[in-house]
Amino acid sequence: MKVPSLLIDKAKSVANIERMLQKAQDSGCVLRPHFKTHQSHETARWFRELGIRKIAVSSVSMAQYFAADGWKDIMIAFPVNLREMEEINELAGKVRAGILISSKGVTSMLRNKLKNPVDLYLKVDVGTHRTGFDPQEITSIEKELEDAGKNEMLTFRGFIAHAGHTYQTGSKDEVKAIYEQGSQILKQLRNHFSSCFPGIIISWGDTPSCSIIDDFSGIDELRPGNFVYYDLMQWQLGACKLEEIAIAVAAPVVAVHPGRQEAVVYCGAVHLSKEYLVTSSGEKIFGMVVFVDEHKKWSFPPSMLWVDRLSQEHGILRGPVEIIRELKAGQLLGVLPVHSCLAVHALRD
Amino acid sequence: MKVPSLLIDKAKSVANIERMLQKAQDSGCVLRPHFKTHQSHETARWFRELGIRKIAVSSVSMAQYFAADGWKDIMIAFPVNLREMEEINELAGKVRAGILISSKGVTSMLRNKLKNPVDLYLKVDVGTHRTGFDPQEITSIEKELEDAGKNEMLTFRGFIAHAGHTYQTGSKDEVKAIYEQGSQILKQLRNHFSSCFPGIIISWGDTPSCSIIDDFSGIDELRPGNFVYYDLMQWQLGACKLEEIAIAVAAPVVAVHPGRQEAVVYCGAVHLSKEYLVTSSGEKIFGMVVFVDEHKKWSFPPSMLWVDRLSQEHGILRGPVEIIRELKAGQLLGVLPVHSCLAVHALRD
Repeated sequence: MKVPSLLIDKAKSVANIERMLQKAQDSGCVLRPHFKTHQSHETARWFRELGIRKIAVSSVSMAQYFAADGWKDIMIAFPVNLREMEEINELAGKVRAGILISSKGVTSMLRNKLKNPVDLYLKVDVGTHRTGFDPQEITSIEKELEDAGKNEMLTFRGFIAHAGHTYQTGSKDEVKAIYEQGSQILKQLRNHFSSCFPGIIISWGDTPSCSIIDDFSGIDELRPGNFVYYDLMQWQLGACKLEEIAIAVAAPVVAVHPGRQEAVVYCGAVHLSKEYLVTSSGEKIFGMVVFVDEHKKWSFPPSMLWVDRLSQEHGILRGPVEIIRELKAGQLLGVLPVHSCLAVHALRD
Repeated sequence: MKVPSLLIDKAKSVANIERMLQKAQDSGCVLRPHFKTHQSHETARWFRELGIRKIAVSSVSMAQYFAADGWKDIMIAFPVNLREMEEINELAGKVRAGILISSKGVTSMLRNKLKNPVDLYLKVDVGTHRTGFDPQEITSIEKELEDAGKNEMLTFRGFIAHAGHTYQTGSKDEVKAIYEQGSQILKQLRNHFSSCFPGIIISWGDTPSCSIIDDFSGIDELRPGNFVYYDLMQWQLGACKLEEIAIAVAAPVVAVHPGRQEAVVYCGAVHLSKEYLVTSSGEKIFGMVVFVDEHKKWSFPPSMLWVDRLSQEHGILRGPVEIIRELKAGQLLGVLPVHSCLAVHALRD
């Protein structure tokens, strides 16, 4: 490892997948994992070996990437980009493709634009206020589904939600409350529309709630993504243990400044992203430093060493002087990222 | 433009380059622009057409990339990564290559590792405290240069500084004060060492000071990078005008929520980075929205529309309802990035 690159612990990752799959099965849900976190054919195959066949992605290009490795049931869990109709049509000619509508009037804009059948999902805003239909506005939803009914290439399959506001919580109880409220909204919508659209499903996302909640009875499908590797943000939210984080970024030491209790690694904002945690004392942390052995396995230092700040390629580490002064230029460290999705996107092949 | 991608305004960029080059020439400095901002052969050629021959980059891979397009004098302005000696040796066999030492003891670690001559620069910490030698510790610097003298492949060429703390300033006067203090430090070091090392230079970086200061007399070399495109951060620092920003990120609208005065674009954290500005009222802004015409030229909306928050691929815009409600899914907008270096790195080919 000469430059910043991904270190993946397969055993930890497979254990994370197995645990989530077991939970989904115990709750009678289909697990449709979100593959935006790993964006990797190799990691995707670990899911396939466990019997998973349905996936979600967040762009048309990711859908193409996974279709090329034999995935046949792909939901593009991002509001449909009308500028990519050609690519969506091509994809839907090869695999079962799902698209997402998340605001009024977009379904009618698909008229005469689809050349192959696609599954349609409606995104519901369960409180995150990122995007999606307001569940109170039943008339808007009815209008959208009416427009869908006029398009013979579209089949409405159900409602999906991503409770991203779980990322703003401070306790597991808050996450549970968000799930209770959000899942009720979806269940009510399914009840309301299932007479007209028999067999429609409700699909629930977000790794914090999927990790923290044990019983998803009544939900048809789970779409977490980040759990495959987890990261420091999930750890801070209580969604995983530090030892369950299955990813680190290889970071060569390039300068050591014991007098300042700092060292510099070649691993910066373009590798880790500028996502940070705020500690209980109000300090920003851009990553946690681990030691890396010759087998690319990592272990934790005796005291915490963290990424204190970042510039484009520089990561500035801080920690106890007795650890810093032992570091050597040329040595390889690892950094557990704050947000694995962003680090993976930056460093994927 | 179907997906998030870079829009570059060549005329604005060339004007930015010409202005900086003129200033360097007027001050009797060599302009060695930092190419980490654009990472583009095409943009690099605009510099070449203006007579520029010396460049700086921040990684060995960037040096290889520009060497492949005929650049022959490349300083890797990042603490030397001892894990890439093979690549550095290969590079130094083809071009005039400069490397950087920024902490004690690294020069001696280069013994027997270099196969071709390279230029050596010492990084000086002029107050940023990112990395570099403490200018007070003359003995440490002398020891390093002594080690360099024992390595026949190394020739000490001078001291370089990057006053990154200009990014933390609130006024032009603060930037000027940083330059006065930092340039004095470099000049004193040059005076101290020039009897032993005749012809050594001092090299000054950072776009805010290079943009705000008019006269660089006494400095040998300027290494700004960001000025080629500028961005919102530079604008907030007073280093450029809004109309001098030469880059935007194409962002397709995918959902419109007039009731919330928001819209969603396909342009998220993996495209813009999570770098933000804090406005005078304390709000975070992740980008400024512009209209884009069919010639890929942008113009400013009648009232400000901004990127209020980001997730992996989603950008959430906020602004006056009369602008929001006119947006349509499928429409192409642009986003002026907060930090162009990070957006370019994410979206380069």
